[in-house]
This record gives sequence, structure tokens and C-alpha cells, in this order.
Amino acid sequence: MFGLMQNQQLLISSLIDFAERHHGEGEIVSRRVEGDIHRTNYKNVAQRSRRVANALDQMKLNFSDRVATLAWNGYRHLELYFGVSGSGRVLHTLNPRLHPDQIVWIADHAEDQVLCFDMSFLPIIQAIHKRCSTIKHFIALCDADKLPEDTGIPGLQSYEAWIGKQSDQYAWPEFDENSASSMCYTSGTTGNPKAALYSHRSTILHAYAVAMPDVMGVSARDCILPVVPMFHVNAWGIPYTAAMTGAKLVFPGPAMDGKSIFDLIESEKVNFAAGVPTVWQMMLAHVQSGNLKFSTLKRTVIGGSACPPAMITAFNDVYGVEVLHAWGMTELSPLGTLCTLKNKHLELPAEEKMKVRLKQGRGIYGVDMKIIDGDGKELPWDGKAYGDLLVKGPWVISQYFKGEGGSPLVDGWFPTGDVATIDPDGFMQITDRSKDVIKSGGEWISSIDVENIAMAHPAVAMAACIGMKHPKWDERPIIAVVKKPGTDVSVAELLAFYEGKTAKWQIPDDVVFVDAIPLGGTGKMQKSKLRELLVDYKLPSA
Amino acid sequence: MFGLMQNQQLLISSLIDFAERHHGEGEIVSRRVEGDIHRTNYKNVAQRSRRVANALDQMKLNFSDRVATLAWNGYRHLELYFGVSGSGRVLHTLNPRLHPDQIVWIADHAEDQVLCFDMSFLPIIQAIHKRCSTIKHFIALCDADKLPEDTGIPGLQSYEAWIGKQSDQYAWPEFDENSASSMCYTSGTTGNPKAALYSHRSTILHAYAVAMPDVMGVSARDCILPVVPMFHVNAWGIPYTAAMTGAKLVFPGPAMDGKSIFDLIESEKVNFAAGVPTVWQMMLAHVQSGNLKFSTLKRTVIGGSACPPAMITAFNDVYGVEVLHAWGMTELSPLGTLCTLKNKHLELPAEEKMKVRLKQGRGIYGVDMKIIDGDGKELPWDGKAYGDLLVKGPWVISQYFKGEGGSPLVDGWFPTGDVATIDPDGFMQITDRSKDVIKSGGEWISSIDVENIAMAHPAVAMAACIGMKHPKWDERPIIAVVKKPGTDVSVAELLAFYEGKTAKWQIPDDVVFVDAIPLGGTGKMQKSKLRELLVDYKLPSA
Repeated sequence: MFGLMQNQQLLISSLIDFAERHHGEGEIVSRRVEGDIHRTNYKNVAQRSRRVANALDQMKLNFSDRVATLAWNGYRHLELYFGVSGSGRVLHTLNPRLHPDQIVWIADHAEDQVLCFDMSFLPIIQAIHKRCSTIKHFIALCDADKLPEDTGIPGLQSYEAWIGKQSDQYAWPEFDENSASSMCYTSGTTGNPKAALYSHRSTILHAYAVAMPDVMGVSARDCILPVVPMFHVNAWGIPYTAAMTGAKLVFPGPAMDGKSIFDLIESEKVNFAAGVPTVWQMMLAHVQSGNLKFSTLKRTVIGGSACPPAMITAFNDVYGVEVLHAWGMTELSPLGTLCTLKNKHLELPAEEKMKVRLKQGRGIYGVDMKIIDGDGKELPWDGKAYGDLLVKGPWVISQYFKGEGGSPLVDGWFPTGDVATIDPDGFMQITDRSKDVIKSGGEWISSIDVENIAMAHPAVAMAACIGMKHPKWDERPIIAVVKKPGTDVSVAELLAFYEGKTAKWQIPDDVVFVDAIPLGGTGKMQKSKLRELLVDYKLPSA
Repeated sequence: MFGLMQNQQLLISSLIDFAERHHGEGEIVSRRVEGDIHRTNYKNVAQRSRRVANALDQMKLNFSDRVATLAWNGYRHLELYFGVSGSGRVLHTLNPRLHPDQIVWIADHAEDQVLCFDMSFLPIIQAIHKRCSTIKHFIALCDADKLPEDTGIPGLQSYEAWIGKQSDQYAWPEFDENSASSMCYTSGTTGNPKAALYSHRSTILHAYAVAMPDVMGVSARDCILPVVPMFHVNAWGIPYTAAMTGAKLVFPGPAMDGKSIFDLIESEKVNFAAGVPTVWQMMLAHVQSGNLKFSTLKRTVIGGSACPPAMITAFNDVYGVEVLHAWGMTELSPLGTLCTLKNKHLELPAEEKMKVRLKQGRGIYGVDMKIIDGDGKELPWDGKAYGDLLVKGPWVISQYFKGEGGSPLVDGWFPTGDVATIDPDGFMQITDRSKDVIKSGGEWISSIDVENIAMAHPAVAMAACIGMKHPKWDERPIIAVVKKPGTDVSVAELLAFYEGKTAKWQIPDDVVFVDAIPLGGTGKMQKSKLRELLVDYKLPSA
């Protein structure tokens, strides 16, 4: 017997409808590519997203056709989020940090029909537009009078001219909530990039979860700065949750340097910000060097890669900003866990509390998780046993777009490629990537643990630990280090720094100083590239 | 094109699974019918709810068969919430405050197969069990040794004996999330009671919404006392949201007096409580008379009927407890709006803030609302225009069980029977029930406004305004008043108290002192009964 409740599908269009009706005056502030600050509200964004929908209709785009963006965080990008998905098309957020060849490959693979880009990316589009075989329309996200005359891109229109001639009236179509709403390609350390294809249902359920007090805790009283890019897994779902709650949104545009971010936080009274560690590193450096203070910022969510303990301490202890460690993946929409404390932790001494904060956090209802050993046997949640982390839930992928990479699921669970422990309170801690863990004499050494110790040394700006072939131990760790400008440290000094901080056999065999550690399109260290750079390296002990 | 996300149905069983895995130690504290305090946790509740599921399987209950409860708030009731719905049956929470004849009628109409009751209700069951034609099994919610030998109820088992012999292992079935999960009858001021039939989907979506910071804001760090009964629209969804978040639950059992509730709040460190105004009235009286203070209580959600302004003031100003006004209905699972402030209100002077707090609140994403005039035309959100309030959304009913009362929807919207205004910020305020509004000389007078003024008089314990036929004005309001013990006020004094507080023509024509105002099963004033009592009354002006 079915319940007798209204059969209302969970559609992204209902988010912007709700925001317009209930939070029409809710502010959206953007630092634009042009450099100025632009102010609008949900009412206007709603109207303009309906213009986008009408413009796509006029282009005769079909249901589920892909509309790509190559854009920073800003109000026009937000209008595309709702106008594209709301009208039944699929929003494909391209990552401008990728190599142009990769962008071409991905746009082709996704069969993008339209590409909307920020003017900062005009040179890229000029270089690649002829090779994008499926794209029929290029739209520059700018005013009509800002469009150069001779771009060489046929039919190029400005966004404002494109939507300006459309009506702001539009009846959002109703359809199955399992329909595709948006897509995002993973950088793919091996093989070609693969895309997660989100649905309206998964997006709305994820948005509800993000709003919960144990996740990001978003209300109409919040002012959120998503530094995490809208081209990177939907800015962790923040644009959707903001519309769901009427929270004020502040977009940084392309200005991701420490000063620009700090100034925006202060001028717009941001109380909550979200981003990857590298961005916060830059902001902390700016704040520390200028002896500044945050007057409104209360919470930051930090994810994308493990947050160095020193950063959590600085935010918490020096600046009174709560750091919430988070863990997620493109394949998880992206949120899997958040490190919000339980009641029992609130009275712990600072040091013990920090041990909890360093973990990636607790599962959110909607994502179940487990750790398994090499034989697929589930491991206990004792905070010690570590194994491959698997997840499942309504906002976890079942497979990649076009079936690339085959069927990723193992008995219905998605293998994350992370190695983790889970403690009795359900707090998960990543100990390593499955492929980065160093297997030394039958034991596993976490490359992240080795890096975190190095990162605590005052002369170390960045550190990457990789395993090197060893005749006796199979693999032994070495650490590649970028020194902070104006500081110095020797190999012997850094190795001595490990004494007493970890088991002797987990201390790296060597230190290699490098100018830079290769970073991928999303700011993560690319250890495969680092290994290529060190192809001729020989272990001193080998 | 469909998204490629995991097809995981939203089922109630996943809530208790999640609570067990991620919050196994999360506490559930109950004051029992026996009078003692019982302590358990989510792990045990999960295990015992699986025993319930096995016990129902052994009784050969089919999918969607109804299992009724007649019980206070407590851990066994919670186990039934998950065991009954989780195993695919429909939990039917009967209201013990109804007349036994009504209980029989409702149990028959629902075709209940099993009835689980608290021992306080044994006399009711003894009186009615022979007339409940569909119920095959009666279960007393008590230990085996607490069951009297000669109850006269054939086959009566104690709950503990019933589930004690079952395994705590059980594989929750997977099925369509639109399947019925639970049901609740509305008191039905006219005609027979009608039932809302909730689905697993509607319950989970509602639970997500309840957890949001702009609704109840529930986290793992909360300790919640749902005074609102679990037999009354699922205790406003709190049991589900608590499992979703791992919040500590404190159940008051049958002891709803001011002292018992206050003591439980203090001893269990409750920070959040939810209930109807009459319960809080009793608790406030206890606290005021004993000159007590709350040491942990921070927030209360008050709903079920309009909260008198004096109560909001007392909680906020005297006791530092934030009062969140809420509005909902059995047909809405039940939440529709909550009065959480927006940023713009935070800096308002106390008096202006109170004006906002007195409204029933803002819409929650998932419930859309509108007000319409007599011709069905949508009215503006200006805080002045009032009309019939209509709602829609995935946790609003589409029709009643067995199609009773025909098709209630109007163009897909559910008419609430309330008359309301909505202001430009989306704050809805009930001005009256459609049937209680007094139509005087072509103008509408809100019976609630008239009552609130009387309630502010120090000698008034309770007040009910009803319309009386008038030869010239069609209807004129009178106010029926229950005096506080040991106080006095005359008709003339009370009428003079209205001067300057409302328009002259909205002042009632007369005051009638009564010993009590008839209350329904859920504690709401029954004005139809009051009208019957005053059938011989004549207006002085008529």
C-alpha cells in the first residue's frame, strides 16, 4: 500500500523558486572578473535564470543536452546553475585549471552543445574552439559592450545580450527527479577523466544534508563565502543549499589570493567559508603577516585534501574560527563526512579535542560507510584497524558517464580509493590513498602521516612523501620538500625532526629538496608526476 | 537521460540503522508509566526494533498491515516506530485522549491487526477490546512480570515476553519509498475522523527538514525533550530526526505536569523541548511559583495552537529560552512553518522582534504556501491581505485514507482551513480558523486576536472567542473566560481592558465566565462544543 502524500518530484528549479518567494531580498555578492563588486538578490537571480531557460529553449536544446561552463564563482554562474538544470538540461562545469587539450577532450566526451565562459578564459576558448566538435554556441559571461569585436569565435554572444532579449517568465518543466541535472569530471590520476552524472534527486537530498547543523549548518542568517570553485563538484553543494535556506552568498570570482579573500570576508561580514587547504594557507599567511583579525568569520569547512594540524590550530586557537574538517569526492556530490564534534568531546582538553578535529569526521545520514581488508571482510570501528573505505547512498554514483571504467561498485558499495580507520564514535580518518600508501616490509606506512610531521617544521612550505623501491623492504618512504622562502634546513636536520614523533621504521630514508611539487587541476599534489621527476633517484640505503 | 546515482530508497529502517552504526551510544531516557527513569541507547533500540520486526513476521502480518499503539512517549514506543515501519507495516498511533467509542471506530476504520498499549490504558482496552473487530493481538507495553493475570483480554502478551523470544538479527526489507509507513487520524471537528497516511519518503524528507537550523536545528549535541506526544503526528517528526542526527532523546511518559517536565529538563540537561502551549503554561506556572530557573534549556518549539504573547515574553525575557513559534497540521507530517528570524530581524528592538516572533513563521523548503481570496485569486504577501491558506509539497497529503472526504486538493494545493497573512519576508500569521472567524457587518474579526487580549489580563486563565448571531451585524463576538484561581474580574472590567488595544468594533459584546473551556483530544479548544454549551445564550445587544 502506498502512502497518500503529494507526488512532488525533487527538482532543482524548486530551489530557486523557493528562494525567490521566501528570500527574494537575500543577497548575492560577487567580485567580478572585471574586478568590481556586484550586488544582486535571489529575486533577480531567479528572474535571470528563467531568461537563461528561455534562451536555451530558443537554441532548440533538447532535454538532457549538456551546457558547459568555464567560469569562476559568481552570480552569472549561479544563474546558469538554476537556468540550465531547471529547464531540464545538464550543467557541465568544466575545470579551467586543466590543460586545454584535456578541456577539449572532456567537452567532446560530454558532447557539450553550449559553452559559457568568463572573459578571463577567452584566450583558452580562442585556442580551442575549433577543436570542440559538439559545441554549437559560445557565450561570453559579460556585458554586451565588453565583448571584443574580433575574437575569431564564430557567433560569439555576450551573456547579457543572450538573456537580455528573453522573457523572465518561464514555467519550469516537471519531470522525473532521477533525471540528470549536472556533471563533473574527475581529474583521473590514471586513464581518461571520468564524469559523475548527478540527478535532481541526488542534488536536493545532498542540499538538505549540507544544511544540517552537523554538516555545514546553513540558515537564512548565514553569510557564506564558497571559495571552493563552482567548477569543482558544485562548490560542495553550497549554491543549492544557500537557495534552499536563503543564506547570503559571497562569490570571490577569480581573486583567490589571501588579501582579496580576507577583504571580502570583512567587507561582506562573512561568517562561514569553505575551501581547500591551499587557499586557507594563503589567507592565513596574509592575516599573520599583517597582524589582522577576523571580525565576523566563525566557521570554515576545509576539505579537498587533508588539513595540516598547524592550520587547524592557527584558526581555532589564534583566530577563534572553528575549523570543520570534511571529506568527500566528486563521486559523492561531494560530501561524505564532516568533523563536527559530539557532546562527549565538548569538555575534552584542547589537545584531545584536536585529535578528534584532525579526523575527516562522522558520516552524514545519507552516506553509509565501511572499511574492508584485502579479502573484502568488514573491519571493526576501533580507530586502529585500517582498510579500504567504501561508501553507499543516494548521492553516491552507481557508475560513470557512458559507462567509462566499467562498473565501479563492489556489492553495491563504491570503493573510494582511500584507506581509513573509523573509531567507535564513527569518526573516519583517512590514513592514505590506496595507491600512495607505502608498503615497507609487510607493514603499511601512511604517506600523509610522514608529510604532516614535515609540514610542522618551520622551514617547510610543502612536503610530499612517496615510496621508493627497496631490495629488502620492498618500498621505503622518502620525502620531497619545498622550503619556505628565506628559511633553510638540511637533510639531517629534517630527519632528526622526526625522532620521537613516529616509529623509527616509519621515518623516511631521505629528504629531497625540490622547487615545487606538481599540483593537479584541483590543487591536489600529483604524486605520479613527482615520481616521474624523481625517476633517476636512488635510495641511499638501497 | 537519468543521472547515474545509486538508487537507494528513502526508508525509515535506514534511520535506525544509521543511529546504531554512527551513534550507538546516543542516549534515550524515558520516564516510564511505572514512574521510574529508564536509560537505553540507539544500539539497544535498534536491536529491539529488529526483535519487534521478527515478532510481527511471526504473527504473519502482511506488508502494509496496520499495527496500532496507544502509548505515551517512551523507548518502547520508539522501538515500535522503527520495528513496525521498518519491516514494512504501517504504524498507527491512536490518541488515548479520544473517547473510547472513537478509538474503537478509528481502530476499525484503520483495520488495525495488533494493538500495543501502555499499562495506564489497560482499563480502556478492557472496556473496548471485544468491539475492536480487526485486532487479533493485544500487547501490553510492560515486563512479563508486570502483566496482571486476569485482564479478560484473550491472548494478551507483555511486550517484553513478545519480543524477548525473538532474534535481534533482521534484514530490513527494501521496497518503494512511497509505501505507507504510518498513519494518524485528525480529530475532525466535523464528520468522522480522517487519516493522513504517511510514506517512508515523506517521513525522511520531513526529518531532513526538521533538522535544518531554520527549523528545529537538531545535531548530535542536542538533548531533546519531545513533550508533544508520539501519538500526535509522530511527535512532530522528532523521533525520526533524532535518529537521523544521533541526538539524545528524553521522553516524559505520562507525567506531563509542570514539575515532572521541569525536573526532567534539569536532570537530563535538556537543551531543546517541543510541545503545545497548554503544557508550557503548566510548566511556566511551576517555575514561576517556585522561583526556579532553567540551567540548560535554550530553545522551545511551541505549536499545535497559537502561542500567547505573554508566554513568549516570559520564556524569552525572564528565562532566556528562545521560543520558536511553529505551525503545522496532521495533514502536513506536521511541519509547515517555523518562526526563526532572518538576519534583518536580529538587530531590531525587542518590541519589533516580538511582533515577528508572534507570527507562525517562514515556510520550510519542501512546503510551498499561498493565500487566496474567496474567488481563488492569490493574494499579495504584504502582511495585511488575509485569505485562506493553501500548501503543497512532498510531505503534504494528497488525500485521506480510504478516500474519506473526497479529494481535498484545489488545483494541487491543500486548503488548510486556516486564514492567514504572509508578510514580504515570507512570515505567515494565522489570523483565524476559516470556521472561527467572526463575520461582523461584512468585516472579519479574528477570534484569536480577541482571545490574546483577554489572555493578557492577569485574572484570565483561558479565553475563547466565538461569534453569536446578531440581527444587524450578522455576527458579533463574545468571549468565554476561565478565571485564574484566587483572582477576580468583572465583565465591565474585562471589556474596559480592550479599550485602546483593538478597534472599537472588534471589542467583544459580552463576557461569559465559565468553569472550563471544552478541549479536544490534542488539547485544542473545541469551539463547537462551547457553542453547544451556550446554545441558550442571548447577546445583550441583540
